[in-house]
Amino acid sequence: MSQAATIPTNSAPYAELPAINQQLFEAKAKKGLTFDALAKELGKDEIWVASAFYGQAKFSTEELQKLSQILSIDQSSLTGALGEHWWPYRGLGPTPPSDPVIYRLYEGVMVYGHSIKAVIHEKFGDGIMSMIDCKVNIDKKPDPKGDRVVLTFDGKFLPYSKW
Amino acid sequence: MSQAATIPTNSAPYAELPAINQQLFEAKAKKGLTFDALAKELGKDEIWVASAFYGQAKFSTEELQKLSQILSIDQSSLTGALGEHWWPYRGLGPTPPSDPVIYRLYEGVMVYGHSIKAVIHEKFGDGIMSMIDCKVNIDKKPDPKGDRVVLTFDGKFLPYSKW
Amino acid sequence: MSQAATIPTNSAPYAELPAINQQLFEAKAKKGLTFDALAKELGKDEIWVASAFYGQAKFSTEELQKLSQILSIDQSSLTGALGEHWWPYRGLGPTPPSDPVIYRLYEGVMVYGHSIKAVIHEKFGDGIMSMIDCKVNIDKKPDPKGDRVVLTFDGKFLPYSKW
Amino acid sequence: MSQAATIPTNSAPYAELPAINQQLFEAKAKKGLTFDALAKELGKDEIWVASAFYGQAKFSTEELQKLSQILSIDQSSLTGALGEHWWPYRGLGPTPPSDPVIYRLYEGVMVYGHSIKAVIHEKFGDGIMSMIDCKVNIDKKPDPKGDRVVLTFDGKFLPYSKW
Amino acid sequence: MSQAATIPTNSAPYAELPAINQQLFEAKAKKGLTFDALAKELGKDEIWVASAFYGQAKFSTEELQKLSQILSIDQSSLTGALGEHWWPYRGLGPTPPSDPVIYRLYEGVMVYGHSIKAVIHEKFGDGIMSMIDCKVNIDKKPDPKGDRVVLTFDGKFLPYSKW
Amino acid sequence: MSQAATIPTNSAPYAELPAINQQLFEAKAKKGLTFDALAKELGKDEIWVASAFYGQAKFSTEELQKLSQILSIDQSSLTGALGEHWWPYRGLGPTPPSDPVIYRLYEGVMVYGHSIKAVIHEKFGDGIMSMIDCKVNIDKKPDPKGDRVVLTFDGKFLPYSKW
Amino acid sequence: MSQAATIPTNSAPYAELPAINQQLFEAKAKKGLTFDALAKELGKDEIWVASAFYGQAKFSTEELQKLSQILSIDQSSLTGALGEHWWPYRGLGPTPPSDPVIYRLYEGVMVYGHSIKAVIHEKFGDGIMSMIDCKVNIDKKPDPKGDRVVLTFDGKFLPYSKW
Amino acid sequence: MSQAATIPTNSAPYAELPAINQQLFEAKAKKGLTFDALAKELGKDEIWVASAFYGQAKFSTEELQKLSQILSIDQSSLTGALGEHWWPYRGLGPTPPSDPVIYRLYEGVMVYGHSIKAVIHEKFGDGIMSMIDCKVNIDKKPDPKGDRVVLTFDGKFLPYSKW
Amino acid sequence: MSQAATIPTNSAPYAELPAINQQLFEAKAKKGLTFDALAKELGKDEIWVASAFYGQAKFSTEELQKLSQILSIDQSSLTGALGEHWWPYRGLGPTPPSDPVIYRLYEGVMVYGHSIKAVIHEKFGDGIMSMIDCKVNIDKKPDPKGDRVVLTFDGKFLPYSKW
Amino acid sequence: MSQAATIPTNSAPYAELPAINQQLFEAKAKKGLTFDALAKELGKDEIWVASAFYGQAKFSTEELQKLSQILSIDQSSLTGALGEHWWPYRGLGPTPPSDPVIYRLYEGVMVYGHSIKAVIHEKFGDGIMSMIDCKVNIDKKPDPKGDRVVLTFDGKFLPYSKW
Repeated sequence: MSQAATIPTNSAPYAELPAINQQLFEAKAKKGLTFDALAKELGKDEIWVASAFYGQAKFSTEELQKLSQILSIDQSSLTGALGEHWWPYRGLGPTPPSDPVIYRLYEGVMVYGHSIKAVIHEKFGDGIMSMIDCKVNIDKKPDPKGDRVVLTFDGKFLPYSKW
Repeated sequence: MSQAATIPTNSAPYAELPAINQQLFEAKAKKGLTFDALAKELGKDEIWVASAFYGQAKFSTEELQKLSQILSIDQSSLTGALGEHWWPYRGLGPTPPSDPVIYRLYEGVMVYGHSIKAVIHEKFGDGIMSMIDCKVNIDKKPDPKGDRVVLTFDGKFLPYSKW
Repeated sequence: MSQAATIPTNSAPYAELPAINQQLFEAKAKKGLTFDALAKELGKDEIWVASAFYGQAKFSTEELQKLSQILSIDQSSLTGALGEHWWPYRGLGPTPPSDPVIYRLYEGVMVYGHSIKAVIHEKFGDGIMSMIDCKVNIDKKPDPKGDRVVLTFDGKFLPYSKW
Repeated sequence: MSQAATIPTNSAPYAELPAINQQLFEAKAKKGLTFDALAKELGKDEIWVASAFYGQAKFSTEELQKLSQILSIDQSSLTGALGEHWWPYRGLGPTPPSDPVIYRLYEGVMVYGHSIKAVIHEKFGDGIMSMIDCKVNIDKKPDPKGDRVVLTFDGKFLPYSKW
Repeated sequence: MSQAATIPTNSAPYAELPAINQQLFEAKAKKGLTFDALAKELGKDEIWVASAFYGQAKFSTEELQKLSQILSIDQSSLTGALGEHWWPYRGLGPTPPSDPVIYRLYEGVMVYGHSIKAVIHEKFGDGIMSMIDCKVNIDKKPDPKGDRVVLTFDGKFLPYSKW
Repeated sequence: MSQAATIPTNSAPYAELPAINQQLFEAKAKKGLTFDALAKELGKDEIWVASAFYGQAKFSTEELQKLSQILSIDQSSLTGALGEHWWPYRGLGPTPPSDPVIYRLYEGVMVYGHSIKAVIHEKFGDGIMSMIDCKVNIDKKPDPKGDRVVLTFDGKFLPYSKW
Repeated sequence: MSQAATIPTNSAPYAELPAINQQLFEAKAKKGLTFDALAKELGKDEIWVASAFYGQAKFSTEELQKLSQILSIDQSSLTGALGEHWWPYRGLGPTPPSDPVIYRLYEGVMVYGHSIKAVIHEKFGDGIMSMIDCKVNIDKKPDPKGDRVVLTFDGKFLPYSKW
Repeated sequence: MSQAATIPTNSAPYAELPAINQQLFEAKAKKGLTFDALAKELGKDEIWVASAFYGQAKFSTEELQKLSQILSIDQSSLTGALGEHWWPYRGLGPTPPSDPVIYRLYEGVMVYGHSIKAVIHEKFGDGIMSMIDCKVNIDKKPDPKGDRVVLTFDGKFLPYSKW
Repeated sequence: MSQAATIPTNSAPYAELPAINQQLFEAKAKKGLTFDALAKELGKDEIWVASAFYGQAKFSTEELQKLSQILSIDQSSLTGALGEHWWPYRGLGPTPPSDPVIYRLYEGVMVYGHSIKAVIHEKFGDGIMSMIDCKVNIDKKPDPKGDRVVLTFDGKFLPYSKW
Repeated sequence: MSQAATIPTNSAPYAELPAINQQLFEAKAKKGLTFDALAKELGKDEIWVASAFYGQAKFSTEELQKLSQILSIDQSSLTGALGEHWWPYRGLGPTPPSDPVIYRLYEGVMVYGHSIKAVIHEKFGDGIMSMIDCKVNIDKKPDPKGDRVVLTFDGKFLPYSKW
């Protein structure tokens, strides 16, 4: 039964988060909710909701209100701490990442980064793929040889300005 | 006319590559070929071909033979240097990456890495997304507000062994 | 209503600040004041006031007195902690910065730093642009294609002494 | 007479640049031209032209042709090396920067970065100031107490996407 | 008598672990149990059990229940904190490691890493030895000249995908 | 046909090695020999021979003589450069390693290092596993689910002296 | 009035100091004393006294006794904590220093260090300037163009021993 | 006889300098001149002249002309390479410095930096000591217990601007 | 009188040690004992005893019992915390060390390390000097020109295994 | 026969040394001399002579003359390059050292550094052991359980000045 669930918030990466975010993780664990379930209730996607839990994105006031109901957290605590006067301070954890899940993403950048850059330039010209106007998605693709993780970044191309 | 095209191989990241890889980039530039065009001739995808050009993947002997024809490079030079006795030494460039295109990917890891980890765990359990049994793809998605780069990693889920 | 607003001071970058600075941020949030509003009351500019909140500049005794009134903070606490015996210890946060807003400024230094140096030398000779005798300003420039941030550094040129 | 002028290209930061960029600096020195003069002939701004000389931006084919005439450099060398098949690899020099001119900019980020972030959020909401769609300018402001360098970054505000 | 045994949990590496893991170490010390003894009771191997104590692997709910009995720890504390909502955040301690035992392993990577890579490629082709689908074992081999530690990594070979 | 085989010695990690070691790799490639084949002729094990090729171990004069015959390298070149007056300078490549094969070993240290230390202490007491009096071996273990790499370190236990 | 003065000891660099040193700073602030005034009472120089406050030098028992009177701190607290059994652990703050005052000194080392070394060698031979048998002094030199800081290091020359 | 004197310019720190600076060191050595002697001929101080030799300061055209005569170096080589189009790129050597002479200066910053900052603030207020408008001097002070190096930095105080 | 002596345990390097080690230092200070005096009572050498106080070596149960009597510390606290279930986690303090005493040792490694390696190889062959089977000693050698510290490392030579 | 002996000077650490030092190593190898033999001829100790070969100490003119005879190197080459105008730039190799011989010394500093500091303070007071006025020696102590390396540092104690 997950009612007694607690997140050991004095461990990485929770220890780096504000108390209110730790409370979000605790409440989610106690309710036994996945990010997907939360996202559906909020009308958002799971990666985005997870990123807001980790302090990497900002809930709107309406979303905080819904969250306070879903997770039975005092609404004024949530809006007071994460409301209009709080702004995300992004970037979490050591670099290079020590956890193998996150390190593999980093390894992808080290191994395929130059290739991705070369193909973006060939297809779009001189510019970058935005990580600000960008959506991140994870799908589970069943495969008899072992299920696959399909991770997608969908970001706007931004051409370099010349002046 | 691209016949005179040369790649300034004494600059980053080419200066870190073996001479034979620099020759590949030179020949590709002189022929005026994109990675997509090369990939179609080789029956592969463009990101994979680019990664082999950057020394991050290994061509088969057959692929080297085709390449020598497509790029008018002496076949024995190619197979001698990149053939059966050569193995990729992966990981290229400084960390964190200084180039904004590659940095944005890295920023994606820093900002969304914990969320991606959390959702992978929720959907698959304790394990990782393989960056070895993984395919990387870039699509151009036209958008009136600005075209979008759709970058996909399709990697096998590997559960942690217990023993 | 912002009265209940709190800043999660155990998070970055607030956790690195003295308790009195955290109190300033809390009070500002509870009063619902912007840095611009505070600056107008103090007869200063918003970036300078923000930098003093972050412990990167020093309020005069008069400014501390005004602040204690504006923010309803005990005056002796403010002048005792940030008064004549306290001096800023400047430089805040990790390097390179992880937050994308601050990283973009850093990227500007990495990408345009040598160009800025070259043009300063061409226009002023051998010397530097002072970051001590320097004013920093942010303007919002409306633009139909997307509003623009205009960030200005106005610093004294300091020629190198020869002896 | 500047005809004999040479740039010691084996020193920092020139040693990190491709030979063709070193040739650009040599030719500019021999012609005795400033970046401002070059910029006027190219119909661009001086910081942008300097950044292209440092390999931090990409000239168009037309600009390369004009440059080859202005600087008496063989056109096919320029277009071959810096033309359609070359893309900037941005980010130059050590971090933190050792040169005092560039370090002061970096110090500006360390000292005023959080204030700039706070004011951007207050004025624009959750997002960043683009360093891609951004123009950089330097003006000399005469001042009897010592001339001043006015450095301006004019960048598009990019709001974070939510999904 | 080991009943009074305590682990100084404010010292490295325990201080980096969640309170519940510190409690596991305390209880194991008080019971005077080795990892081998614990492993036999759990039907697992000692290195794996140790890695779970250090937060580097995840116990199943059944294993947590057995552990709560073996170590006389409240079951709901264990399953609440380390149960279905908790996931390991792997990678522990500084790098390079300062402790001579762990440093020697690291030195092994530095000294024999390229040789191991070369022989893996010769025997298996282009790919890696998995550290996810991997079992680690330590045996004591008596030797009159001094007993020997036999450390074995048994990991699945993963060939690089091509696409 | 491997006669034309060359190793691109200007690439990592060969570029860090003395010319004579690069010559060894070239000759081995031209002869089409594996480390296992070489080891059998020298009466040694393959990992040890590979480590000597990478400058991480020292051949005896007799072994150099045999090598000169096997690889058709001038004997006096080999003994002059790698003979009695040369000593290995151990430790090769960046840290943490960027190549995924070597990184996985490093990840093994980060993830299992504390567990290995704990079990060594439980089984042997206060001391270390020697990486000097240590033998390293790789076996290929066929497995229908995918062949496995069995990597073994067999090192002497060294107790800490007390005095 | 400085009676209420407090030093925010949870901020840099005070947070790195023992509680007793924080108490010294608090007491000095409350008494409204400068280091110069303290130094005159102790018969020492101000930089030396400041360095002892920062834990970078060691007061004698007599100096601690005088200090306890001057600053109204319990004598046994001072001699107990900073007396015969305590030794300075020198070196304070990050490197490179982030605070502009300290960074400028560091920049002096980076810019003039090789010149200072060269002139010391020319004037004294092979050896160093001691930072142990060294006195540091700051004078204020009035200047109509702006007062000047005169910082002097007076250190013994130590020739290298040969043996 | 010093005529045959050569500076091993492929060693630290000369290897980081442009060829023309290496030539200056060679010529100075061959002429057997000290920096003091050179400084007297140029009407400058020895530390400044040394810093210009190390590429840390800029000679005027007149100084380059005098130097070409004193050191018998072709004048157009000197003015071409170090004349109006060249600007110092300051900051030389690794950090922290490995050479004991330069390290001791760095140690002075680490040990006395906070004290120097504190006393500057007490004597001058909030601001810094300029390392741009700064003169550096070394004197030899004879002492029966061992001669002393007296190193002086004489820099303008720059108060922080408020705006 | 040293009875009131306390060690400021919230300062470096004590803050990194477990509470029980801090208690050891406190008790030693209160008793006014040197490491030499303690060593004589324990039948050990002073450097070894000091290293055990710093958590860098392991007392036997008998030594802990003696210590509890000598220092009037509760025996079960000592044996519970530092007894059979505790193992040293070696390596203390930052690197490179900031404290001048420890830095000088480090400088010795940087300056004489290659020479020591070369002479060990000439005298012993390919192998290392053990720092595990090693005794460290400090003697005071009176000298009219200034007493000398004689620091000796007496370590077993370990030849590299070949296999 | 050692006549053909060559040192692979393009490898670590020789590649960091000036050409003249590489020549010294070559000549020593060709003559088949040990540092001990050289030291006896020069009337010096072997570690000191080795340190001068590695550019970490300075030969006198007389020593260079003797060396030119012993090693059959042109005298003017030696005195020109390493004579009166050359000064050692000390500190060689990466940090932490990768070679196990040098790493063990470094480990000694990490493990015993605080103990050595504590005992120096107890025996000598506040000060350091000089690494400038210091002699380093290596002896081979035969031992039936394995010969031992006895490494001695004999350095002057330098008390901290107070002023």
